[in-house]
Amino acid sequence: MPLVISIKTHSRIDMLDITPAVQEAISNSSLTDGICVVYIPHTTAGITINEGADPAVCQDIMKKLNELVPYDAGYLHLEGNSDSHIKTSIVGNSVTIFVENGRLVMGTWQKIFFCEFDGPRSRKANIKLMGS
Amino acid sequence: MPLVISIKTHSRIDMLDITPAVQEAISNSSLTDGICVVYIPHTTAGITINEGADPAVCQDIMKKLNELVPYDAGYLHLEGNSDSHIKTSIVGNSVTIFVENGRLVMGTWQKIFFCEFDGPRSRKANIKLMGS
Amino acid sequence: MPLVISIKTHSRIDMLDITPAVQEAISNSSLTDGICVVYIPHTTAGITINEGADPAVCQDIMKKLNELVPYDAGYLHLEGNSDSHIKTSIVGNSVTIFVENGRLVMGTWQKIFFCEFDGPRSRKANIKLMGS
Repeated sequence: MPLVISIKTHSRIDMLDITPAVQEAISNSSLTDGICVVYIPHTTAGITINEGADPAVCQDIMKKLNELVPYDAGYLHLEGNSDSHIKTSIVGNSVTIFVENGRLVMGTWQKIFFCEFDGPRSRKANIKLMGS
Repeated sequence: MPLVISIKTHSRIDMLDITPAVQEAISNSSLTDGICVVYIPHTTAGITINEGADPAVCQDIMKKLNELVPYDAGYLHLEGNSDSHIKTSIVGNSVTIFVENGRLVMGTWQKIFFCEFDGPRSRKANIKLMGS
Repeated sequence: MPLVISIKTHSRIDMLDITPAVQEAISNSSLTDGICVVYIPHTTAGITINEGADPAVCQDIMKKLNELVPYDAGYLHLEGNSDSHIKTSIVGNSVTIFVENGRLVMGTWQKIFFCEFDGPRSRKANIKLMGS
């Protein structure tokens, strides 16, 4: 079974920093050196790596995605979440991060963000560790 | 040599569910546990994971990509497919999926879609399996 | 430590072909068969795979990204580079490429492009090789 992180989102569009939970999964494993893939098993939520120091960055990302792909734009899919599916394919549904000495190797300002595009909901992120 | 899936697309912009072919490649291999990377070796076609239950979702994705990146918008590249190249970089050219017990581990509604942006053409998707 | 490529970008938005440097890192390693992940540790720069034959393709990609995500659009983040962060999440910050017989396995027209969105700067790309 993959390692699984449970996530509770709080609004329709939301970005949550899951870096500590991903690091914890690695720390609880035997992985020292390799890669960590975080995979979102949903079709209306994605994942991205971006700046975590200033929350305004995530707000700007979400605002621009809403401008480019508005909630209501005459979509064919009738569940009221076509924009969520489209945003997911733009942002992507997995990230791959290096692990060395049992620690995520990321840039100074980088954090891993779960991207909710059709919340609020209970969500999951699956983790796979490859290496030794 | 990588495992290769041959794909025949039927219109200029098209999304084809290649999940069964990817699973077949895994089933024909010795991989039990690991990751499967699907890599598109083209520059005017990409790959994404999204909902496969309602075909309207893919139609909405393609329509929105055409709105954001129209076919003809005064591009410099003179082959008439700049929009195809741009769409490819927005959607991405590879996906990574977990494999456990010889099966793809995906969400209930997720399917793997080959994204044709300059068809119809004969295309390929390369597959690499990592693990044991 | 990961393999690291140093990159010097020359304008605010720039796409640089780093394929030769990635291949060189593989050639200097013991990897014969597996995958190569190239990870950008920045939050205002990304990475993509696209056509390298005609420089107009990259110019069209950058022009369209600037149209979709303009430099100045009333962003909340006050460092003047919100567009750079947004472009990074659209394009993505890592690529995964297959390696066979010690060589990158890519399509005829594909090249790996470092995407500068807030330059000019000195940047890095981290490389991880998995396989045997």
